[in-house]
Amino acid sequence: MDQKNVRVMAPATVSNLSCGFDVIGLALGEPYDILELELTGSGTVEIAEIRGCSTLSRDPRKNVVGAVLRAIAERADNGTGFRVVLEKGIRPGSGIGSSGASAAAAAFAANELLEGIFTPHEMILFAMEGERLASGAAHADNVAPALLGGITLVRSYEPLDIVQLHVPDELWCVVIHPDTEIKTSVARGILDKHIPLDTAVKQWGNLAGLVAGLYSEDYDLIGRSLADFVAEPKRAGLISGFHELRAAALASGALGAGISGSGPSVFALCRGAESAAEVKLGMSEAMRSGGIAFDAYMSPVSPAGARLI
Amino acid sequence: MDQKNVRVMAPATVSNLSCGFDVIGLALGEPYDILELELTGSGTVEIAEIRGCSTLSRDPRKNVVGAVLRAIAERADNGTGFRVVLEKGIRPGSGIGSSGASAAAAAFAANELLEGIFTPHEMILFAMEGERLASGAAHADNVAPALLGGITLVRSYEPLDIVQLHVPDELWCVVIHPDTEIKTSVARGILDKHIPLDTAVKQWGNLAGLVAGLYSEDYDLIGRSLADFVAEPKRAGLISGFHELRAAALASGALGAGISGSGPSVFALCRGAESAAEVKLGMSEAMRSGGIAFDAYMSPVSPAGARLI
Repeated sequence: MDQKNVRVMAPATVSNLSCGFDVIGLALGEPYDILELELTGSGTVEIAEIRGCSTLSRDPRKNVVGAVLRAIAERADNGTGFRVVLEKGIRPGSGIGSSGASAAAAAFAANELLEGIFTPHEMILFAMEGERLASGAAHADNVAPALLGGITLVRSYEPLDIVQLHVPDELWCVVIHPDTEIKTSVARGILDKHIPLDTAVKQWGNLAGLVAGLYSEDYDLIGRSLADFVAEPKRAGLISGFHELRAAALASGALGAGISGSGPSVFALCRGAESAAEVKLGMSEAMRSGGIAFDAYMSPVSPAGARLI
Repeated sequence: MDQKNVRVMAPATVSNLSCGFDVIGLALGEPYDILELELTGSGTVEIAEIRGCSTLSRDPRKNVVGAVLRAIAERADNGTGFRVVLEKGIRPGSGIGSSGASAAAAAFAANELLEGIFTPHEMILFAMEGERLASGAAHADNVAPALLGGITLVRSYEPLDIVQLHVPDELWCVVIHPDTEIKTSVARGILDKHIPLDTAVKQWGNLAGLVAGLYSEDYDLIGRSLADFVAEPKRAGLISGFHELRAAALASGALGAGISGSGPSVFALCRGAESAAEVKLGMSEAMRSGGIAFDAYMSPVSPAGARLI
């Protein structure tokens, strides 16, 4: 029996994790986007409704979900069309992969309706078309964990090679999302196009340490490796109170903390639920004293990415 | 009973492994340096004899082993002195950690004679004094694996943090050492002091892939990750026939290949003894057609570093 409707979710994601600029991403338990997709014979993509966000365009040529589904329809049989209802649980411009989650949900849902004709690798490539529309660059560090779950590495773009890293059982993530917006283009533009070789060496020493820490479940090593000599020194100034927020996370027992994606969200990694709760509390207190509204999330690293609900 | 004499060995090492510039090192089974050390009450360091190499100074202020032992004598009880006989199995300027092996052997031997008063971390710091003398920079990417064995990561220099990475059972290394010398200072000077951020991202994607491959014992991933966008493009021109040699390694079944340290040695990683033998043969044939004399080595990654013999 051919299925004509699916309802899927895809989680928010934290990319970079301090030392893994542009290559590492981690799937959260919450928040997430929900997407209802209907397979039609119209040959077109229709975005019927977007809930939870008034700023996104319903024009499929200007919408992340539209970009993904148009690319898929082009590859599928003649006449393949989709009708979408998107429920945004992740605010755009938050730095926790809002466009990536929508794109991943769209690719996953379409693949379900098309009876699983695409590999995970192909789904990532389609979802990257959404990122290309959203930010001008078809990056994979959010869509890969949003689709696959866990912690992913983009080892290479040419050819695309995504590696799922081992995730220690007790690894939790806290995210504070201040109610401000940073445009990815601004956060990108502020970075130096060349970096000192010495700085690059420090950065990749830490990234290698992070990966070793994940596999060996060495939480201290994970924490020591969460240092960013490339993006954070430039971007911290875009996030009001960043240093106080990071200090509060560490003082509350976080393994480490940094900017999620291009911000303004700030993440902290923690060992276990109790520690995560303390860190969420400590970071929330620091935010309240700063007077900026915010959302706070905590969850273990989500082993699952996009999935049926 | 106090021991007054020890005889130790420390292995050659391959640093960088293509993507891990300045942070990764691997211990070989052969070649190695042998060091005989006697504890004296002279308060001085005497280098009695150096076998196998006529170009190294016996002046302890100008010799790697002297630099290490002088630093140790300074930290030990008043009157602590050493008498050394060094047997060089690794030629200086080979790119496989000749100075690092001598320095590691000296630190290890002295610690044995001083009844193990130093931690491995301290031994590495002492051995780094030898590297400071040899190359002007107290780097740890050769002395760490020469002391500890296996594959090591220098996650950070400030503070020094050495991580021993997991080594897959079947990982073998082939090394071709052409009979030419490259001065580390020349190989360093040829590198750009700043690199494009895009290039750095490619490099650390591969390094993260290499570490993930080591832990997950994914030999294909290890091979795919052995790419160098930073040093190899600059240094390959210093090594006559490098590209042919690398191509011969890959054609013979190597997982990957690149420049060992700052060259001129070229390494290849292989899966298993049989494959290593094929690769050694293929690379040797390529060398012979180039008409440059060379030594060839193969061994599994050595689980042991400096040790008593």
